[in-house]
Amino acid sequence: MNVGELSAAFTAVPTHKSVKKIQFANQEDKQEFSKFPTKTGRRSLSRSISQSSTDSYSSAASYTDSSDDETSPREKSQVNSKGSSDFCVKNIKQAEFGRREIEIAEQDMSALISLRKRAQGEKPLAGAKVAGCTHITAQTAVLIETLVALGAQCRWTACNIYSTQNEVAAALAESGVSVFAWKGESEDDFWWCIDRCVNMDGWQANMILDDGGDLTHWVYKKYPSVFKKVRGIVEESVTGVHRLYQLSKAGKLCVPAMNVNDSVTKQKFDNLYCCRESILDGLKRTTDVMFGGKQVVVCGYGEVGKGCCSALKALGAIVCVTEIDPICALQACMDGFRVVKLNEVVRQMDMVITCTGNKNVVTREHLDRMKNGCIVCNMGHSNTEIDVASLRTPELTWERVRSQVDHVIWPDGKRVILLAEGRLLNLSCSTVPSFVLSITATTQALALIELYNAPEGRYKQDVYLLPKKMDEYVASLHLPNFDAHLTELSDEQAKYMGLNKNGPFKPNYYRY
Amino acid sequence: MNVGELSAAFTAVPTHKSVKKIQFANQEDKQEFSKFPTKTGRRSLSRSISQSSTDSYSSAASYTDSSDDETSPREKSQVNSKGSSDFCVKNIKQAEFGRREIEIAEQDMSALISLRKRAQGEKPLAGAKVAGCTHITAQTAVLIETLVALGAQCRWTACNIYSTQNEVAAALAESGVSVFAWKGESEDDFWWCIDRCVNMDGWQANMILDDGGDLTHWVYKKYPSVFKKVRGIVEESVTGVHRLYQLSKAGKLCVPAMNVNDSVTKQKFDNLYCCRESILDGLKRTTDVMFGGKQVVVCGYGEVGKGCCSALKALGAIVCVTEIDPICALQACMDGFRVVKLNEVVRQMDMVITCTGNKNVVTREHLDRMKNGCIVCNMGHSNTEIDVASLRTPELTWERVRSQVDHVIWPDGKRVILLAEGRLLNLSCSTVPSFVLSITATTQALALIELYNAPEGRYKQDVYLLPKKMDEYVASLHLPNFDAHLTELSDEQAKYMGLNKNGPFKPNYYRY
Amino acid sequence: MNVGELSAAFTAVPTHKSVKKIQFANQEDKQEFSKFPTKTGRRSLSRSISQSSTDSYSSAASYTDSSDDETSPREKSQVNSKGSSDFCVKNIKQAEFGRREIEIAEQDMSALISLRKRAQGEKPLAGAKVAGCTHITAQTAVLIETLVALGAQCRWTACNIYSTQNEVAAALAESGVSVFAWKGESEDDFWWCIDRCVNMDGWQANMILDDGGDLTHWVYKKYPSVFKKVRGIVEESVTGVHRLYQLSKAGKLCVPAMNVNDSVTKQKFDNLYCCRESILDGLKRTTDVMFGGKQVVVCGYGEVGKGCCSALKALGAIVCVTEIDPICALQACMDGFRVVKLNEVVRQMDMVITCTGNKNVVTREHLDRMKNGCIVCNMGHSNTEIDVASLRTPELTWERVRSQVDHVIWPDGKRVILLAEGRLLNLSCSTVPSFVLSITATTQALALIELYNAPEGRYKQDVYLLPKKMDEYVASLHLPNFDAHLTELSDEQAKYMGLNKNGPFKPNYYRY
Amino acid sequence: MNVGELSAAFTAVPTHKSVKKIQFANQEDKQEFSKFPTKTGRRSLSRSISQSSTDSYSSAASYTDSSDDETSPREKSQVNSKGSSDFCVKNIKQAEFGRREIEIAEQDMSALISLRKRAQGEKPLAGAKVAGCTHITAQTAVLIETLVALGAQCRWTACNIYSTQNEVAAALAESGVSVFAWKGESEDDFWWCIDRCVNMDGWQANMILDDGGDLTHWVYKKYPSVFKKVRGIVEESVTGVHRLYQLSKAGKLCVPAMNVNDSVTKQKFDNLYCCRESILDGLKRTTDVMFGGKQVVVCGYGEVGKGCCSALKALGAIVCVTEIDPICALQACMDGFRVVKLNEVVRQMDMVITCTGNKNVVTREHLDRMKNGCIVCNMGHSNTEIDVASLRTPELTWERVRSQVDHVIWPDGKRVILLAEGRLLNLSCSTVPSFVLSITATTQALALIELYNAPEGRYKQDVYLLPKKMDEYVASLHLPNFDAHLTELSDEQAKYMGLNKNGPFKPNYYRY
Repeated sequence: MNVGELSAAFTAVPTHKSVKKIQFANQEDKQEFSKFPTKTGRRSLSRSISQSSTDSYSSAASYTDSSDDETSPREKSQVNSKGSSDFCVKNIKQAEFGRREIEIAEQDMSALISLRKRAQGEKPLAGAKVAGCTHITAQTAVLIETLVALGAQCRWTACNIYSTQNEVAAALAESGVSVFAWKGESEDDFWWCIDRCVNMDGWQANMILDDGGDLTHWVYKKYPSVFKKVRGIVEESVTGVHRLYQLSKAGKLCVPAMNVNDSVTKQKFDNLYCCRESILDGLKRTTDVMFGGKQVVVCGYGEVGKGCCSALKALGAIVCVTEIDPICALQACMDGFRVVKLNEVVRQMDMVITCTGNKNVVTREHLDRMKNGCIVCNMGHSNTEIDVASLRTPELTWERVRSQVDHVIWPDGKRVILLAEGRLLNLSCSTVPSFVLSITATTQALALIELYNAPEGRYKQDVYLLPKKMDEYVASLHLPNFDAHLTELSDEQAKYMGLNKNGPFKPNYYRY
Repeated sequence: MNVGELSAAFTAVPTHKSVKKIQFANQEDKQEFSKFPTKTGRRSLSRSISQSSTDSYSSAASYTDSSDDETSPREKSQVNSKGSSDFCVKNIKQAEFGRREIEIAEQDMSALISLRKRAQGEKPLAGAKVAGCTHITAQTAVLIETLVALGAQCRWTACNIYSTQNEVAAALAESGVSVFAWKGESEDDFWWCIDRCVNMDGWQANMILDDGGDLTHWVYKKYPSVFKKVRGIVEESVTGVHRLYQLSKAGKLCVPAMNVNDSVTKQKFDNLYCCRESILDGLKRTTDVMFGGKQVVVCGYGEVGKGCCSALKALGAIVCVTEIDPICALQACMDGFRVVKLNEVVRQMDMVITCTGNKNVVTREHLDRMKNGCIVCNMGHSNTEIDVASLRTPELTWERVRSQVDHVIWPDGKRVILLAEGRLLNLSCSTVPSFVLSITATTQALALIELYNAPEGRYKQDVYLLPKKMDEYVASLHLPNFDAHLTELSDEQAKYMGLNKNGPFKPNYYRY
Repeated sequence: MNVGELSAAFTAVPTHKSVKKIQFANQEDKQEFSKFPTKTGRRSLSRSISQSSTDSYSSAASYTDSSDDETSPREKSQVNSKGSSDFCVKNIKQAEFGRREIEIAEQDMSALISLRKRAQGEKPLAGAKVAGCTHITAQTAVLIETLVALGAQCRWTACNIYSTQNEVAAALAESGVSVFAWKGESEDDFWWCIDRCVNMDGWQANMILDDGGDLTHWVYKKYPSVFKKVRGIVEESVTGVHRLYQLSKAGKLCVPAMNVNDSVTKQKFDNLYCCRESILDGLKRTTDVMFGGKQVVVCGYGEVGKGCCSALKALGAIVCVTEIDPICALQACMDGFRVVKLNEVVRQMDMVITCTGNKNVVTREHLDRMKNGCIVCNMGHSNTEIDVASLRTPELTWERVRSQVDHVIWPDGKRVILLAEGRLLNLSCSTVPSFVLSITATTQALALIELYNAPEGRYKQDVYLLPKKMDEYVASLHLPNFDAHLTELSDEQAKYMGLNKNGPFKPNYYRY
Repeated sequence: MNVGELSAAFTAVPTHKSVKKIQFANQEDKQEFSKFPTKTGRRSLSRSISQSSTDSYSSAASYTDSSDDETSPREKSQVNSKGSSDFCVKNIKQAEFGRREIEIAEQDMSALISLRKRAQGEKPLAGAKVAGCTHITAQTAVLIETLVALGAQCRWTACNIYSTQNEVAAALAESGVSVFAWKGESEDDFWWCIDRCVNMDGWQANMILDDGGDLTHWVYKKYPSVFKKVRGIVEESVTGVHRLYQLSKAGKLCVPAMNVNDSVTKQKFDNLYCCRESILDGLKRTTDVMFGGKQVVVCGYGEVGKGCCSALKALGAIVCVTEIDPICALQACMDGFRVVKLNEVVRQMDMVITCTGNKNVVTREHLDRMKNGCIVCNMGHSNTEIDVASLRTPELTWERVRSQVDHVIWPDGKRVILLAEGRLLNLSCSTVPSFVLSITATTQALALIELYNAPEGRYKQDVYLLPKKMDEYVASLHLPNFDAHLTELSDEQAKYMGLNKNGPFKPNYYRY
């Protein structure tokens, strides 16, 4: 299908006044864009806060109550204070509130602010036209405004239909970013917004920043000629990365892409450090459970499992672990956790937590054997770890006792406490600290700069990991938050170690 | 003042139909009962969830929305399904919802359930007429219904005007307990309810269970002849205990009283173990702060401070401590915390947490020197530790960013994040686990049984600590929650140690 | 028996030249002083390094090899550089080496040095004649020389026949202290030394500093007229304290005595903090065992057990606990340890550690069920916790594989690794840090000062605990070691708390 | 140089009766084999217990006293009970004692025993002729005898002139292994033994197992024709691996080689887990220091530094960290350690510990600023981290106070306590647990099996890492030590994850 065909086939409405349904040329197209089919392959937590673009998303609630206004933003005519109407948000009047949210977020994201300063003279993104698709939150706003400060022109849309903070979107629109997003989009809205983001007369994206791959896919499919001229794609989600590797394998990736998801700092913060805190937070907010003395089994001892185990043990829980990988199992032993099979211990457990990335780790059989009051939840990547479907049977009663908390009641009165219906606990029931988001956002910004400025030939039409030196740079930008003082190698020492004084400091295979 | 005088002086309206103001005989009386004057002397956390009976209380929110009904309960005529109207609650129709809450709480309070079973044959409280004044929550309902199961007749009222769970009160009323309490009582309502609780024809309390001392004080003042015939008082709050010791010192305590507040198990759970968890919970719910790498100073290294420090350190915070007591300071050193003066470190800190029980520990001078974004909160006993009043000056701007979270903004833009306006963080912004409440409730029940059944002369007109053996019994009732198996002494071992096989196992001065 | 009788009955040889056996007046006397009969009642660890005066003692080895000289010190004629021969040590020529040891110890005992300075002007012990009986080590030498610096005249003897560091004794003798002690005394030597310490023409002890009660007992029995004139006794061991309480009960204690053993700081350091480190040290030095992943059961969760559990857990061991006391059991649960019965788990354990103070906690039956390679040791107070005697049966083979390490081999080849033959691991196989000894020594010095200077009537003929304020002072003298900065109460705060600004800061029942 | 030349050039004496010096053909040869020149490049800890083959080695002391016999083993005529004299050890009569040591070691090395059993039917090493050069200890004996059990013929020699346990060597000789090693070899003895190991009529090595590369180098240089026919080399030390990579780079490596040093399990156990324990052990054994409250700076936050920090923090030390790598620095922050420059904190520190692998990390300037009593030691890879040479100046006095402990005394009396003269603390002053050695030994055995049985072409003439699946297998063989139960993937789960049910379970870049 060429461009001409596409523009004929696909008549997304170009103005926000007359709202029409996105129209697909044929049934296959529609199917492709309506099922989010490739979003299930994530192997680890991504900042992509919910697994699918249409998953519900509870933590970043909108701050002001917008429920009074039921008009679709697509039907509204709004203009910002500079006279522009090239955006579509819930209510441009919420801009001031949103601006304050952004300012507060800036305080925890000083790495980006410092990046703005360090790179400002040179404007390393001058000329860059960035089409972005991420969650629209105060934290991503800090990222977007950093890109603008570095010279980029940005058009932006949301990667999730629930996660947009309307006030923040308004503030971005007010400040001149063409943003198309609101909380509670329909699926049609979702694609309409993506299209508005890239389909603009006189403006053609030369960089893509994506979270989940939807924007990339849309451009690839609908605007192939634009796609070919893009200088680089930065993708941060497991799903999006997976899609890119598939394209690459199939020989269809004609653009260099940067896999931000697998950079060291992002992985450690998203998984180990972030989960260490959010497991406690998620359990407390939902159940008020006391951790001391509780018997807990954690399924999976990867980074997420390690974080969960460490926190729970520190607060007095008695934790054991299941593993399939003998190396991780041995680590669990050395870290002081008994390694067991789930069915050996499930009867005694007060909590069962999954962190495997696998499916049906907790089966109906396990659930049948749990004791009264056992809490079951998932910290892994998808909602498949606990076989929740198996609990939808007539003999079991479901009782919703709080938001995100169901009591599933057996005929004999036994209750199992299921959190977030088996979806990700840390995303449904706790929050992601700004600091973690700052690490990701800084990585994204650096990846954009690198791809945009790289000399011809440095990057081929393939998927790349961020160079270790830039990973180290991201880390160094965050050290001031902790008042951490780095030691510098002397010339003599650098020579002795065979290292450049400015890094990189470790071989690629280093495990940290 | 004799009873006759009292009944003349005090004409609390005996029915719930015609609502009149509580009338005080004279101005002094009114003052005495309207200012809660003695409630400021607490030296440690009490389960008494808020310091004063009229403090706001946020954690145990009412589950169903009752805001639609603005009629005062005192003006309503309600009857339970057995035809009784000897109660006054918000809405008797909420009983079913409340019953479920009680049932859920029972699952975490198996010690009380087991006490019911163990003591049921003998009905050790047969004949006991208990007037109770506590928070009215699902957990206290489990206590009240345990007392009833053990033979007591109970009349109950709330010790705090905000903390009542209306549905639970309804469930108690439905089950036959004469309960007088609702969320949002006025001060007048408060005393009216207390009076209704004890002023009942044909029923005269012979036991008092109190939390804060208000009920005790009311009976002592208004019904002295009833007071003299009471067999025992069980008091669980610091404030109430303080009042009792004062009465005792003054030679006016004509009844034996049991100080439940200072029992070992209650202290350890209310302070060390409970705060270890709630400091994290309270901070997360209010600020979503990441703990890893944060520099924190904890003022005070008593049990509360120890709990806070242990949890924060475990999650990667860098914690230092201030102390006035060299012994506690030495403990802090050995536990791995630098001991500093607040003004030496306050500039570098990300969080300042007070746990001293003292006043003006954090002064305006300290606050002026804090860095931007510093979080300040109080885990100690009163709202005096942080000099919040000093922040109410014109040059500082207060911005309420969430419930319980204020940004105080200096002229140069620096923000200090003040939580709960300096009140107790763990009570304002987190919850108390049922397990902790179970320990207190079981202690209360045992204290009642002990005082009610003690042979003449075992207890004089004084304030007693629970006998160590009963403290041990409370603990033993909670061990099954952890599937803990106690070892029994052999005869030979008991003889060798000079101990009774059933305890007590430690001398009174043992420090645990 | 009066003094006259005694001096007739007891003809201890007054000079060190002609060595004769101590002669007892009759058989009972001999029995009394030869069996150390009361030394078995200790309930907790004491600094008194080994349980009985004649227990072997391995950690404080003599630094120089004195084995070449087999002459008994009692037969030698030695003179120090000042011409005095009023001492009896192994070899006065080792004084210089010993002096260096003392100087090194002083570096870790700065509290005593600082006490010397603070109290020097006033010489609070001027006129005090102290008869002392303690281990003779570099650390006690620092104590003795502190007492001298404060004005006391000291005569000293060893409380254990193996623990004397000969070089240190020589250094003390050289500096003018009349010391009677060497490593490897016979029992007869032991009493001879004690007698030489107190039986001196023209010098009569008015203060006693004792560790174990042997000196006290000797004076009480042999020199009752001296005993009556003593102003005070300071006793630091459990055994000695026990003896004093017995005397007091029997109405025979005619002197005020200070129980130094039960002071807060001493208890916490001797038990919790010291054992936290020595359990690891003792196990490593004897067995080189790796802690990570090891299954360990700790019997007893008092201070010693808490210390052991905390350290082992921190290094990756999987620890469970046995307890008889439900309160301690509940603490174990909340601290994250399963509470079990020994026979439920003994088959799976890699290590079994006793810390109960009880007897036969580990029985032959338990030992029979242990797995191959299980390590068994004792951190409690006596050698009775493990029923070692039950292993002395023909079918079991004992193999000594290292000092303090026996393999006990079952007929099927199973080996159980028994450490220190069931005696105290931390004293047999690890060392006590100078810092811990400094706390004890400072407490002893302060207790002496207090008793010696107390106004008439402050102390009766009874056994006292150190006043809390002095406990706090001991702690404060040790804070500079950690560069710890104490906060001082403002007048306003002191008033608010009802405290004196200089302490004491806590009520007597405070649990720390 | 061909074999003929070699045998002419190199006339090592083939029998143990007439001892002659190893004769080198020319000066270069001699130089090459006498300086161990390449042994300085290690970047991480290796099991190779000391850095150079001639470093002293203290931990694995010989068990029986052999000092009475001063005759060189090369001059003795010894025969084992089967009549063989093809070995050279200190004293064949010590075999029985050595056998017991081996049996005891077997108990901690059950993975090897289990490998013997699993592979015994097939005898995967049937036909293998293994020339080995490792430390000769009870643990390596278990490895050697495992290789024999699997079908190999072994000849063995020591990789270090001090580390041989004579009794174990005797036991190996008695059991039929041709072993050439004793404690206290001269350098000439060292090479003589290596030559005897490989230079044997009628036996030609087809596999090499080396630790340090000396044997490999000898064969490569002296017996090139043998070298060419070797099927594979297994090398476990950093030094040896470095030499192999150099050979490979130079195109001179004509044999596939396996780098066992960098396998995951070995690295984690040698560095993180082993150092976590040995830092405490090494410090205690040398200084008896108390950890609680001590201020410690750890230079370097790699695996070794992480292990040290974790253990010290757990025991109450206050730890800060220096780093050059911002990623590791950020990890330190998140783990709760302040990141500082050494000169900012060195004045306050009680201990300074280096773990960087770099040189002159602690300089004379730092040492000058340390406070009295500061302990300085090295846990990194070489003796270069602390600039010990700078302390060898006239104004400083060195005092050896214990084995491995020097006090360096400044003119003003300040003492710095230097451990092991800056060499590796964990190797000089503590021991390596058998379990850690078992992991390495098992890895070596599997590498031998893999190389020996690999089909033609699987391995080229290069240096390989152990396949991840074999790493996983090593781990799985050690799980039974911890009674750990691995979970198996269901078919459905394996398919979902895209994994083989038997592993490998992780991508190669996985960081663990």
